[in-house]
Amino acid sequence: MSTEKPPLPAPRLGEPYLLTPGPLTTAYEVKQAMLRDWGSWDDDFRAMTRELRSRLLALVGTGADANDCVPIQGSGSYCVEAMLGSFVPKDGKVLVLANGAYGLRAAQTMEYLGRAFTLINKGDYLPPRGAEVAQALADDPAITHVLAIHCETSSGILNPVEEIAEATRAAGRKLLIDSMSAFGAVELDAGKLGYTAMVSSANKCIEGVPGFGFVIARKDEIEAARGNSHSLSLDVHAQWATMEKTGQWRFTPPTHVVAAFIEALKAHEAEGGVEGRGARYTENRDVMVAGMRGLGFETLLADRWLSPIIVTFFCPADPKFEFARFYELMKAQGFIIYPGKLTVVDSFRVGCIGQMDAHVMRKVVEAARAALKDMGVESAAPPAEALEERKKLAA
Amino acid sequence: MSTEKPPLPAPRLGEPYLLTPGPLTTAYEVKQAMLRDWGSWDDDFRAMTRELRSRLLALVGTGADANDCVPIQGSGSYCVEAMLGSFVPKDGKVLVLANGAYGLRAAQTMEYLGRAFTLINKGDYLPPRGAEVAQALADDPAITHVLAIHCETSSGILNPVEEIAEATRAAGRKLLIDSMSAFGAVELDAGKLGYTAMVSSANKCIEGVPGFGFVIARKDEIEAARGNSHSLSLDVHAQWATMEKTGQWRFTPPTHVVAAFIEALKAHEAEGGVEGRGARYTENRDVMVAGMRGLGFETLLADRWLSPIIVTFFCPADPKFEFARFYELMKAQGFIIYPGKLTVVDSFRVGCIGQMDAHVMRKVVEAARAALKDMGVESAAPPAEALEERKKLAA
Repeated sequence: MSTEKPPLPAPRLGEPYLLTPGPLTTAYEVKQAMLRDWGSWDDDFRAMTRELRSRLLALVGTGADANDCVPIQGSGSYCVEAMLGSFVPKDGKVLVLANGAYGLRAAQTMEYLGRAFTLINKGDYLPPRGAEVAQALADDPAITHVLAIHCETSSGILNPVEEIAEATRAAGRKLLIDSMSAFGAVELDAGKLGYTAMVSSANKCIEGVPGFGFVIARKDEIEAARGNSHSLSLDVHAQWATMEKTGQWRFTPPTHVVAAFIEALKAHEAEGGVEGRGARYTENRDVMVAGMRGLGFETLLADRWLSPIIVTFFCPADPKFEFARFYELMKAQGFIIYPGKLTVVDSFRVGCIGQMDAHVMRKVVEAARAALKDMGVESAAPPAEALEERKKLAA
Repeated sequence: MSTEKPPLPAPRLGEPYLLTPGPLTTAYEVKQAMLRDWGSWDDDFRAMTRELRSRLLALVGTGADANDCVPIQGSGSYCVEAMLGSFVPKDGKVLVLANGAYGLRAAQTMEYLGRAFTLINKGDYLPPRGAEVAQALADDPAITHVLAIHCETSSGILNPVEEIAEATRAAGRKLLIDSMSAFGAVELDAGKLGYTAMVSSANKCIEGVPGFGFVIARKDEIEAARGNSHSLSLDVHAQWATMEKTGQWRFTPPTHVVAAFIEALKAHEAEGGVEGRGARYTENRDVMVAGMRGLGFETLLADRWLSPIIVTFFCPADPKFEFARFYELMKAQGFIIYPGKLTVVDSFRVGCIGQMDAHVMRKVVEAARAALKDMGVESAAPPAEALEERKKLAA
């Protein structure tokens, strides 16, 4: 077809593709940006920090003016902790919406903080819906904040943040979003959703390398967060205040990772921003899911809940299928896949994000076909209980 | 002389040398190790994590067997906070020994933690001595831990940790050491000093790039730290327990920074370990200090307190000397120096660590000479009050 784009270049050093929710396969040019050293207080690096902050802020769509971007050293979970510790008052209470590992980790973070929270735990993959959020908020006036996971990579579900934002706003509460694995590929409009703060990380849909994350939050909320954090290192207000005053990070930033991220942000813009990046990932998912279904694999989720980030497949019922072997056979063909995280049935996950396109995803499917053949698996169909499990989603 | 080594290679991309306490100038080979992507849960990366931990542990000299190494994502200050939050019980009390910004930051961290501490604040650069530590511990039986800064880069002083360790042990208390900028170039023997825990960072004397640090602590103390941390992200016990069980970091590690660090650790070993690295830095300092003194500059510290890490010089009294201009003139010649941090008199700092040798340090001195000439500064001698200030050290 005439719309077919030329393939993205393959990794230069022959390493496998990372079909995972990040760290992911990045462009060689992104990594090349790490081939020099910077002084973190020098003007050259301060200019990089400014560029990083303004480019990220421009990705939130409407409402960017009322917000600011605060990068935080460490992993994505550090940023979630920084957001909770900085924006939830010591006498606040959080409604944590969980349907997988990341929601539960946020709840665990609240336990560390010693601040009040309540949990809606939907299990492995069922989405928290607007109506139940509204009910929970009506039932408990002490709740000040709602924490939502945008894409829960445990199952790969894209949670309905619009519904959740609407219910939260209608009840006059504040919304915090963990958009770790979705930001940059799925719209998260600050003006439309009206969130207090959101967090994401360098090594996800912007396609940088890991080493820091960032908070994007309303400026008035950042100012009000002064003195609220339980942690010096994870104090969003203090980091912001220093950056505003000096242009520097409070403590040593991962300079090389920042340099790589700026390259990644430029490539993101060149690809058409959130829309362009999202379109490629969506095509990756569609090509890969269609191909895997063609081999007899079944997705955990119905199409409506499938994210363009990562997809969970049930392991085949065939006793000849063994995940560890499947993993090694895929790796030997150049593809690193991801184990599943479901508690009820065996599963595995295949990511759609990173420097990969439909050409690569077709090869992934061919590699899976070859791996099944190698193991002597005749049918990739899941066990009956997996399909029973899946029926819950329709209920 | 026949002992003269060939020069280290200059930075390839023409960037300036970083004469700073880190981030610093790293070898090109270290940065090249970042040119590929890793899956953080994959066996290949787990092997890298194992290698990193065991190589670091081998640097503590005697007593390594009783200790373990726990890398922590984030900057060095994150590691100090992780150490304090994990090893100081909620009802413990810390004697913080401060003579500069990093000691004061540790005290500020204790304020965030809401745990008890008392401060010996020696001001800008006076060293905390064993006798006063002994006295403070005798005076306050509630003190459970002493926190010492190994090299306080605010002034460049190498604090007398042996004296402090001896006083702490004699009083039956526990010792925590922030050896951020010294570990890897100055001996810090676990067996001889008997510390509970110490912290350092990837981008200091091991000559890696920034993005994580590490705690080395007694295994029995790590086990006893379970449930003690105020922070999920900075919980040393939880990080250790996960690494021991799965070989993985709890949350996404900075994979590229880890790869660079392993290259850096290999180069550190090839240079002769702590002793070899320390010898090069000591020569760097000696050549640079002798040259700067030859230009008329004076060091803040007497020779006995000068670290091989970074050296503070007084700004010249000559009114034609302006630090901002000096900085730019040095940068234009390929050397990024560091502003001073003294509160009483103007000063600047020149680092001795990173991929630099005596050949480079001689060029630094020549660049300083040219910069003075360019500014029309005839004498680099400091103002009288600077020398008055320095007399305090002898008192």
